[in-house]
Amino acid sequence: MELERTELTDLLALMENGHSPFEKAIRAMKVSVCEAFKKSGALAPVTFLPGTRTLEPNPEVAEAFPNSIAASKNIILSASGAMTEKVSGKRVAVLFSGGPAAGGHNVLVGLKEILGPTNTLMGVKAGPKGLMKGELFEITDDHVKGIINTGGFDFLGTDRTKIEKPDDIDKVRNVCREQNIDAIVIIGGDDSNTNAALLAEKLFCDVKEDGSGVQVIGVPKTIDGDLQIGDDLPISFGFDTATKIYAEKVGNLLRDTASSLKYWHFVRLMGRSASHVTLEVALQTHPTITLISEEVRDRNTTLSEIVDIIALTAIERAKNGLNYGVVLVPEGLIEFIPGFTTMIDDLNDKMTQFKDDLGGKSVREQLLFIYSKLTQDHGELLESLPEAIKFMLMSDRDQHGNLQVSKIETEAMLSHEVKLRIKELDGNVKFEYLNHFFGYEARCGASTLFDSSYTYNLGATAGSLILDGRTGYMASLRDLDKGAKPLGIPIASLLDIEMRKGKPAKVIEKALVKLDSPAFLYLKSRRKLWAEKDLSSSPGPAQFWGPTSRQMPKTVALNRKYNSLDFKFDADE
Amino acid sequence: MELERTELTDLLALMENGHSPFEKAIRAMKVSVCEAFKKSGALAPVTFLPGTRTLEPNPEVAEAFPNSIAASKNIILSASGAMTEKVSGKRVAVLFSGGPAAGGHNVLVGLKEILGPTNTLMGVKAGPKGLMKGELFEITDDHVKGIINTGGFDFLGTDRTKIEKPDDIDKVRNVCREQNIDAIVIIGGDDSNTNAALLAEKLFCDVKEDGSGVQVIGVPKTIDGDLQIGDDLPISFGFDTATKIYAEKVGNLLRDTASSLKYWHFVRLMGRSASHVTLEVALQTHPTITLISEEVRDRNTTLSEIVDIIALTAIERAKNGLNYGVVLVPEGLIEFIPGFTTMIDDLNDKMTQFKDDLGGKSVREQLLFIYSKLTQDHGELLESLPEAIKFMLMSDRDQHGNLQVSKIETEAMLSHEVKLRIKELDGNVKFEYLNHFFGYEARCGASTLFDSSYTYNLGATAGSLILDGRTGYMASLRDLDKGAKPLGIPIASLLDIEMRKGKPAKVIEKALVKLDSPAFLYLKSRRKLWAEKDLSSSPGPAQFWGPTSRQMPKTVALNRKYNSLDFKFDADE
Repeated sequence: MELERTELTDLLALMENGHSPFEKAIRAMKVSVCEAFKKSGALAPVTFLPGTRTLEPNPEVAEAFPNSIAASKNIILSASGAMTEKVSGKRVAVLFSGGPAAGGHNVLVGLKEILGPTNTLMGVKAGPKGLMKGELFEITDDHVKGIINTGGFDFLGTDRTKIEKPDDIDKVRNVCREQNIDAIVIIGGDDSNTNAALLAEKLFCDVKEDGSGVQVIGVPKTIDGDLQIGDDLPISFGFDTATKIYAEKVGNLLRDTASSLKYWHFVRLMGRSASHVTLEVALQTHPTITLISEEVRDRNTTLSEIVDIIALTAIERAKNGLNYGVVLVPEGLIEFIPGFTTMIDDLNDKMTQFKDDLGGKSVREQLLFIYSKLTQDHGELLESLPEAIKFMLMSDRDQHGNLQVSKIETEAMLSHEVKLRIKELDGNVKFEYLNHFFGYEARCGASTLFDSSYTYNLGATAGSLILDGRTGYMASLRDLDKGAKPLGIPIASLLDIEMRKGKPAKVIEKALVKLDSPAFLYLKSRRKLWAEKDLSSSPGPAQFWGPTSRQMPKTVALNRKYNSLDFKFDADE
Repeated sequence: MELERTELTDLLALMENGHSPFEKAIRAMKVSVCEAFKKSGALAPVTFLPGTRTLEPNPEVAEAFPNSIAASKNIILSASGAMTEKVSGKRVAVLFSGGPAAGGHNVLVGLKEILGPTNTLMGVKAGPKGLMKGELFEITDDHVKGIINTGGFDFLGTDRTKIEKPDDIDKVRNVCREQNIDAIVIIGGDDSNTNAALLAEKLFCDVKEDGSGVQVIGVPKTIDGDLQIGDDLPISFGFDTATKIYAEKVGNLLRDTASSLKYWHFVRLMGRSASHVTLEVALQTHPTITLISEEVRDRNTTLSEIVDIIALTAIERAKNGLNYGVVLVPEGLIEFIPGFTTMIDDLNDKMTQFKDDLGGKSVREQLLFIYSKLTQDHGELLESLPEAIKFMLMSDRDQHGNLQVSKIETEAMLSHEVKLRIKELDGNVKFEYLNHFFGYEARCGASTLFDSSYTYNLGATAGSLILDGRTGYMASLRDLDKGAKPLGIPIASLLDIEMRKGKPAKVIEKALVKLDSPAFLYLKSRRKLWAEKDLSSSPGPAQFWGPTSRQMPKTVALNRKYNSLDFKFDADE
């Protein structure tokens, strides 16, 4: 049988390769541009002046970043009007680093447009590794037309390489010299911005033959939302798109439980260590139970206590005829359970140390053997875990013999244990569960209007910082509710010393959920009611037109004490 | 710490319990009403006349449904103008049956509005079981304002009970007598409509004291899309919403693979036996590889051949530097692999028969024991399966000792096997994979504009069939592209004899993907290109406003030979 060609089949063939009706329509949408960039109607870069806020760097870090700290004096820069001098001839390289997030393409668009036709924007293929290899190409106006407002990082690609070793930095130095690059924009999360700070310091001067350096500017990306700095960086980009996608699905599951009346859904949400994603999704949907890792750590809640909380809630609801519910589990939960990570480290060490003894043994025998080798606390914790999780901990290891905590299916472990616990507590209570992990499907969602506008203006800010001659800064915007203001945050001043893989490292500290933040307190004030009654809401799929298309994340609006959820990048809108 | 009450916290509290900005906005949206129901501007029921199309019933079925067949003469009814007689005083009960699907609430809204204030609509709580228990309440105009355009079945709830045994039918008869019910509307899938046919036949007359019967009308629901009857029932409701949700996520994953450049995603999609959902999602997104169960069966493709197809594609792509892709796997795939289901039946039987011999043995020993007990073909098939799947088949059983085929994680099995196969074929090819199951999160999505309009008009059609005195019909609409036409399809005439749980049963045959249908042929004509190059598109999240909000499923438009994807229920729009 052959396909008969029709008007419709011809139409469908035209929709391939990024030309769905939706993709075509969003490319044609205008983004909101901050007042600061609208010099007499046309788009123009801004200059920066030291603002009123100063960061306090860690003294040890300050010593390691002498150039950057001397230049910034740890002061956050504020946009101070249109640039009067016309800067031209700059060659700027831009790259994505780390996991993708919606809005990355609009950073490039904002950058390209603010640099204008007299400067050159070069795209780096496939992330930091591509930079070291010198895989650059010129980004044209036609490219911009193709990528504007679309999600994903697919225009350039990305990877997770860190440019840390002197050799790596030399490679970058050579590429900049050979390809005559004046500035690099790194679009990435906390680690990538840490990397940007290091590169800025190392390339501060003496890269080119005339003794000049290469400027390095960071742009804050991560769906996890763990890169935020109070009012000066209300949120990283990509968080809004990802949480809107997760919240839609969780809202749907909440409606599903209340329709089919028989399942508890355990949903693990991507977001690494911090629980920002889970908190945002909870505020959007009002699930039955929301676990927040930071609270678990603060209260020293054990795994059995968590299981008990869920089991007792399920029993209480069953008494009221509600044999269903939704439990949100942050991806990083397990790391926050008291003693868990140190136990895992201990286990990793001992499994390597006693490799030969463990060989040939069954998992059960391995467990019996290993208990006594761990410290007493760790042995007891391991022993107290559910059978399934013990097996998982003994087996799922990477090639270096390490266990990836993020791969532990916490939601499956919890639901399994809750079922057993309910059977113990009250044999008559019906409890059926389904497990979910919502993750990868949200990193490259269609960039929401919030993320599209935010990133366009972040790109314009990054471009302005470059044209203004700055290096070692992260582009940011504040006051997202009333016409956003461009900022430059000195990255080195943000670094702190943290243990990474057993060694002290100078890194940007991950922003965790603060237990005294309005967003968390809001959850705390409502969650008892949400557990008792069905008060769920469905935020629906992210809208790009119509009355609900201009909402920012609830956690951002609450924590920044804005008066409404409406974002406003262009004060005139 | 206490939450400080602000303007925003007050606003957020008002968004609970189904009052998100989105939910509020969609409730205020107008639905499109078919010309047929718009008598001089006001909404009015239609009468029906026999149309030109006659179904051919199975003679054995015809014998079992004498009342229904005599009344319908197997002819599909067509709307034939506004009802002139004013029918009042009817008491109609409506219920959801089976898994939830978006749009169910608007069936109630259409029903309620077409019945008008002189008739009564009663809602049945929690599905068929609720009907047998007589758990009914009156649906008011206020209820309608709350549920209009919202997704889910949560207003009534649902369950999967079948009303089949004489005792069950007696219960329904009693409830109808006691609560003075004149008609029942059953909103459900193929099995629920089969059930509606049975009830219609059994309650045809002699239910009430005056000798009258109770009318029974079905409404075609299922996200699986396996309830369709050519032009006369282009699709069941809920399919559009579910596939738009899945397609968004698959589109996002396709962008993600092209961004992070390192993963193959194996995505199993809900949809029971038929591959309609997978086919629709494929046409929306253009994934690297799409498996269609019906084709697998038609070609007698074995599991190893499927693994080979994927492995060879991955190797070919790797040669072109594309170490990533997305594979769509229909939920029902495994049932269509030659000999698989009969092998499972055989295995179930033998495991019960040799229960005592198997006790105390390890899974590996059990396998060795059981091979020889199966027929030679079945033994060989079982032996040829991947290790992991063999273990799954031996262990995951319900309390009756049966294995639920739908619970087999086919995507995990395939990805695992593909990795092994690639290692065999070419050790240098990098192949990393992630597995997904997209299912429950789409059954109760916000009803798309297509599903909202479709269901409103299906409800109005069902109500009209009742006021017109009909029973044993399923409400339907045809010509969804040019002002839809209401129909009544005689359900008994659709039934056929199928083996269910080892016994012949009279059921509506599930509509499978036809290999000569334009939708399948379209996939077939493009998929080679999609496997070689990245031609994916992101349909984006379902839109409720703006230029892309009025699209119907591509499979429906192709198979019905419509000229565009735009749906049109109201010819005047």
